[in-house]
Amino acid sequence: MKLVIGDKNYSSWSMRPWLVLKHFGIPFEEVVIPLAEEQTRASILAHSPSGKVPCLIADDGVTVWDSLAICETLAERFAQHAMWPLDAKARGRARSISAEMHSGFGDLRNNMWMNIRAKFPGKGATPGTLADVARIDAMWCECLELSGGPFLFGDFTIADAMYAPVVMRFNTWQPTLSEAAAAYARRVTEQPAVAAWISDALREGHDIAKYDVCA
Amino acid sequence: MKLVIGDKNYSSWSMRPWLVLKHFGIPFEEVVIPLAEEQTRASILAHSPSGKVPCLIADDGVTVWDSLAICETLAERFAQHAMWPLDAKARGRARSISAEMHSGFGDLRNNMWMNIRAKFPGKGATPGTLADVARIDAMWCECLELSGGPFLFGDFTIADAMYAPVVMRFNTWQPTLSEAAAAYARRVTEQPAVAAWISDALREGHDIAKYDVCA
Repeated sequence: MKLVIGDKNYSSWSMRPWLVLKHFGIPFEEVVIPLAEEQTRASILAHSPSGKVPCLIADDGVTVWDSLAICETLAERFAQHAMWPLDAKARGRARSISAEMHSGFGDLRNNMWMNIRAKFPGKGATPGTLADVARIDAMWCECLELSGGPFLFGDFTIADAMYAPVVMRFNTWQPTLSEAAAAYARRVTEQPAVAAWISDALREGHDIAKYDVCA
Repeated sequence: MKLVIGDKNYSSWSMRPWLVLKHFGIPFEEVVIPLAEEQTRASILAHSPSGKVPCLIADDGVTVWDSLAICETLAERFAQHAMWPLDAKARGRARSISAEMHSGFGDLRNNMWMNIRAKFPGKGATPGTLADVARIDAMWCECLELSGGPFLFGDFTIADAMYAPVVMRFNTWQPTLSEAAAAYARRVTEQPAVAAWISDALREGHDIAKYDVCA
């Protein structure tokens, strides 16, 4: 099984399925393509027929090229792991908030991009971005209260992996969070698979200039 | 099982899970909330705890409030139906293109919104929108060639339901399509569940002014 991803410092979409594979101990080969290079698309195409990252290529030839589609595929193929919550109500909620992240929060994406090595405290806080932050904060608090924590649905699931890049954004841009949301963000940051990804990102030598400055 | 949806004429996100329920013959109660009204959010909250449409509320209390999350939940709960393709490679591709629709094609969404009753031929054709149309056309052709048709993966699946609102947009805005894509769009339009949705949309009496004019 091979996962084609972008730079760990910048590629929020790549981080999600990588965390799921890593956390659940599924062996995989990782192929990192530096993004925003002239030859990026050609480099991706050499590994991934879709030209997109992340892309999962299983040993039986099954190819999946979207973060959420990869997570659903992994949950189906490795049903022995509780990648989604086992309880049906919790699973419905986990799929809902994961899909909400997948299709939404455009202001947050545009104004508080992922750059794990950077610190831009207090920047990027447009009204739309703060509305996204507030919705995420409220959603996390509700899930944590229902589950009792430490993660959104108790143990670490796909839903936490979907929001881990948001935690990285919050670490960089430092918007004000409720106490419960801030504590959850700290737990995610310290979670072993997340910590491994961060450690790799800090060691990467490839910079994308436009993401390294903030007006 | 209850599905809370917006106006059939305008709510592209609502159309997707409705088609899946209808096509696979799953009994459900439909609750239509007219969108863009002052009291819309309150009306939705009366039926759907998330305040969002579409929202599926199952008899056992499971609640799911996103179109793709609802489709995955239905595929899981009604495993006797091939809502996703049975072949693993086809299923990986179907999940990938469904997720690509779910998170992408922002130009198409913004410039060629769904309004089944309207005809705006030749409008909305910004360069970004035409790039989205070209990507969708190429994707449909590739799937149809691999499967042999008549739908993207042979029989009608969730992937066709995810793209049915795009077909509605194409019927309204009439961008130029390849012959194979245009023929697929006609087959989707005539598919019984889709035709039933269109028929309901044509009979709805509620207009949303801003979606009924095109500069």
